[in-house]
Amino acid sequence: MQWDRWGDPDKRKVLSDGVKSLLEQALGVKVDDSRNLDADSVVLTPSVLSERGLAALADIVGEDHVGTSHRDRLLRAGGKSTLDLLRRRSAEPQDAPDAVVTPGNDDEIARVLSYASENSIAVVPFGGGTSVVGGLDPVRDRFDAVISLDLRRFDTLVDLDTASGIAVLGSGLTGPRAEELLGEQGYSLGHFPQSFLFATIGGFAATRSSGQASAGYGRFEDMVQGLRVVTPTGSIDTGRAPASAAGPDLGELFVGSEGTLGVITQVRVRVHPVPETTVCEGWNFPDFATGAAALRAVVQAGTMPTVMRLSDEAETGVNLATTDKIGEDSVTGGCLSITTFEGTAEHTAERADEARAILKAHGGTSLGEEPGNDWEHGRFDAPYLRDSLLDAGALCETLETATNWGNVDNLKTAVTTALTSALSEQGTPPLVMCHISHTYQTGASLYFTVVCGQTEHPISQWRKAKTAAGDAIIAAGGTITHHHAVGVDHRPWMEDEIGDLGVRVLRAVKAAVDPAGILNPGKLIP
Amino acid sequence: MQWDRWGDPDKRKVLSDGVKSLLEQALGVKVDDSRNLDADSVVLTPSVLSERGLAALADIVGEDHVGTSHRDRLLRAGGKSTLDLLRRRSAEPQDAPDAVVTPGNDDEIARVLSYASENSIAVVPFGGGTSVVGGLDPVRDRFDAVISLDLRRFDTLVDLDTASGIAVLGSGLTGPRAEELLGEQGYSLGHFPQSFLFATIGGFAATRSSGQASAGYGRFEDMVQGLRVVTPTGSIDTGRAPASAAGPDLGELFVGSEGTLGVITQVRVRVHPVPETTVCEGWNFPDFATGAAALRAVVQAGTMPTVMRLSDEAETGVNLATTDKIGEDSVTGGCLSITTFEGTAEHTAERADEARAILKAHGGTSLGEEPGNDWEHGRFDAPYLRDSLLDAGALCETLETATNWGNVDNLKTAVTTALTSALSEQGTPPLVMCHISHTYQTGASLYFTVVCGQTEHPISQWRKAKTAAGDAIIAAGGTITHHHAVGVDHRPWMEDEIGDLGVRVLRAVKAAVDPAGILNPGKLIP
Repeated sequence: MQWDRWGDPDKRKVLSDGVKSLLEQALGVKVDDSRNLDADSVVLTPSVLSERGLAALADIVGEDHVGTSHRDRLLRAGGKSTLDLLRRRSAEPQDAPDAVVTPGNDDEIARVLSYASENSIAVVPFGGGTSVVGGLDPVRDRFDAVISLDLRRFDTLVDLDTASGIAVLGSGLTGPRAEELLGEQGYSLGHFPQSFLFATIGGFAATRSSGQASAGYGRFEDMVQGLRVVTPTGSIDTGRAPASAAGPDLGELFVGSEGTLGVITQVRVRVHPVPETTVCEGWNFPDFATGAAALRAVVQAGTMPTVMRLSDEAETGVNLATTDKIGEDSVTGGCLSITTFEGTAEHTAERADEARAILKAHGGTSLGEEPGNDWEHGRFDAPYLRDSLLDAGALCETLETATNWGNVDNLKTAVTTALTSALSEQGTPPLVMCHISHTYQTGASLYFTVVCGQTEHPISQWRKAKTAAGDAIIAAGGTITHHHAVGVDHRPWMEDEIGDLGVRVLRAVKAAVDPAGILNPGKLIP
Repeated sequence: MQWDRWGDPDKRKVLSDGVKSLLEQALGVKVDDSRNLDADSVVLTPSVLSERGLAALADIVGEDHVGTSHRDRLLRAGGKSTLDLLRRRSAEPQDAPDAVVTPGNDDEIARVLSYASENSIAVVPFGGGTSVVGGLDPVRDRFDAVISLDLRRFDTLVDLDTASGIAVLGSGLTGPRAEELLGEQGYSLGHFPQSFLFATIGGFAATRSSGQASAGYGRFEDMVQGLRVVTPTGSIDTGRAPASAAGPDLGELFVGSEGTLGVITQVRVRVHPVPETTVCEGWNFPDFATGAAALRAVVQAGTMPTVMRLSDEAETGVNLATTDKIGEDSVTGGCLSITTFEGTAEHTAERADEARAILKAHGGTSLGEEPGNDWEHGRFDAPYLRDSLLDAGALCETLETATNWGNVDNLKTAVTTALTSALSEQGTPPLVMCHISHTYQTGASLYFTVVCGQTEHPISQWRKAKTAAGDAIIAAGGTITHHHAVGVDHRPWMEDEIGDLGVRVLRAVKAAVDPAGILNPGKLIP
């Protein structure tokens, strides 16, 4: 992962003339893609860890596994939100962890946490570094120092029980590496969030991640059968059975704990044989409400697509759904939807037929395989596009929520209006696009993409828009985050989300497992 | 519900000659079904609540809603486990709540909890009274008195959002009443545990109940979209969206909290249109392992039956699966399995066909519709049979667990052996029967029924057997309870189940929401 942008340098996206003209004409952006930045010229605040402290950490994990180089620290200075990237590119001195500690086993983690608890050191667990909510910010809070606890050495397939369809995965495995190890034995996890190529298994669990195939294989918490978590006051293995009535599900307390309650070192997940067949199909709906009603009918009928998405008119209009063709082709209006089905050939065909009948009956027109294949091809590339837009002087960011089907239209309008007003008031009227990417029997997610010109102070510009959107989400009955997690950025809305009692419960759990409060301070828990 | 036995007096089961001869010949029970008991002759310990205390409670909920009569107290003296029923029928003085308080709204509950916190009164929330794990025992612990908090007045369908498929149900609604209210609008919840006819919506949530149609509609926690819970330190509404990444799922902390963390007053649940079609089918498998592998293949293929069960050879042999015919007909050996599918006619037919092909390929022989219909007809009647067996001088009880598919055979053998040894050592060799009633992609539940003769001290006789079974479950990697919950009876194994850290987490949450510890003391949390 690059220090100042998403992913692989070779995949950098050159903006097409179509996009450039869209930016210039519609959003008033003066395109300038000549910017270039140099990692070595970024100024980091100096590490405050003493020689004694570094030696003590090296004593636990080995000298090779404690890093304090400029590059080590810069790469763990934060995640990949637009705010992170804007900050990275600024000339101001930037905060970074005082050291990067890379433990090799649970016992080393326990000893690091113990040392940190006794020596006023905050600990930020680090997986793939893909947080878009400030979950990795090196917040010092009341502590003397902060370290990044990098889990990359927890990178093995610990066990695969094919009869039960359960794999035990090291938390530091990236998405592709986990799929590779499972694939060698004919299995797949099926968790493909946009961060898939870089994010880790532990990160998926810590953030309640949801992948593009969630309609078929579930959200990551649905896949999790159990977790091993190391805390400053001991370890826990959650989940003794596929289901249990032995009290509250404590696994659900650590899934989504974002490094504030413990360090996840192993995840037991549900896996399935690599599917024989995948069938993709594109659909066009005359408008978003019609399309949403069609998706609802499919999911409520129990038809079980693997993927089911719907782009609104704006997103369809600029062809954002297929990032390779954005702004180049134009579709004939309406709203693009994608479905995929997976399984044996017969199983897949039957379900696709059932869904097809429902989508047609609800006003859909099939566009054949191509749009689905295009989407699949480019489905991890949107972050590269954002980088190029930022490079070109545009502001681009995404945010997401979810609600019940009965409230989808209301919430979509509320968030679109809030974003449009907040950015227009700053002189940068935006293009706000939206899609449904995750469907449930009772509701759906809404994923917004915003593009506009940058003001002179793009960080505060976006903060104003984000605040307006968050307030609108809460007022309109949505959740503050459907799959990006809370981190620093959504923490102001947590009391609205879970109430005063919910906050007190989280604080009580935190105090029980992390009495010194060293684990990822300033995140999640208000 | 009767005070000393299950359910409706008119449904009392007369043991057939076949069952009587089975009991006498195989288990050495001397059948004597002439016993008859009189509620008024049961001796309850006197209520210790002062006039002042009763007046204060009446001041909150109204005089008509504070009961101290013999019958009020006797009916809330406990649940319906075999230990409960044996205790009820004994001549010893029995403990009972000092009063039964029946609040009418959340505010009254908050005030009762506040009064109880300040006046050393333990509070046992009461729904349908069907606990089989001692969840309703009037444990006084360190408190001066104990009251039963009866939720029967929370009995309305508060809201039905048909677009989202979400109903808001009062926690005191019984299963049939909830289905009736939903059915009037064409909807169904689809939660049918054996306790269905008497248990309540709040009880389903408080105990992580799982119904017979869990393969199709999910466990109760899967249905729950949100809860309203009143605690001594405030209220909480969980669940703002169908899914969220806004931190740990606090709903999952209150689902399964068994009245120890708060009083559930409303439950928002996923509902579905009343299915057009239900198709039942019976299957025979040569042995349990073959049948289990077939069920596993169906669930892992994503075929989604509504119900899928498998009785072992012993249970099939005495025809326990169809309680109306127990001991009367004999099947031709092997293992009986039942599947049902629900939905539109076409949807149902396609899925039933897919399952049929898989079951056949895995060694199953179809028995047609009849066994499935027989099972459906008698599916809530097993508790009546247990009463008649107890009346006749036999000991009969059930227990259940769950594990991964790869561990099903091992766990089944371990529990069967433990029960058989523990009861044989006491001179009462048992008949131990087992079935799978809940299936998951990664594993299944195992439900055991034990019948044997009674010793002179049947309570201690069963305690020894239960201890042996619980120890065997933990040693063999199962969960101590798949759907009966913890209560008093499974509490000794909670630390094995969730670990020392898990226990500390539950205690921390308890201390935060119920600092005086008045809520259902002695249950769930060690």
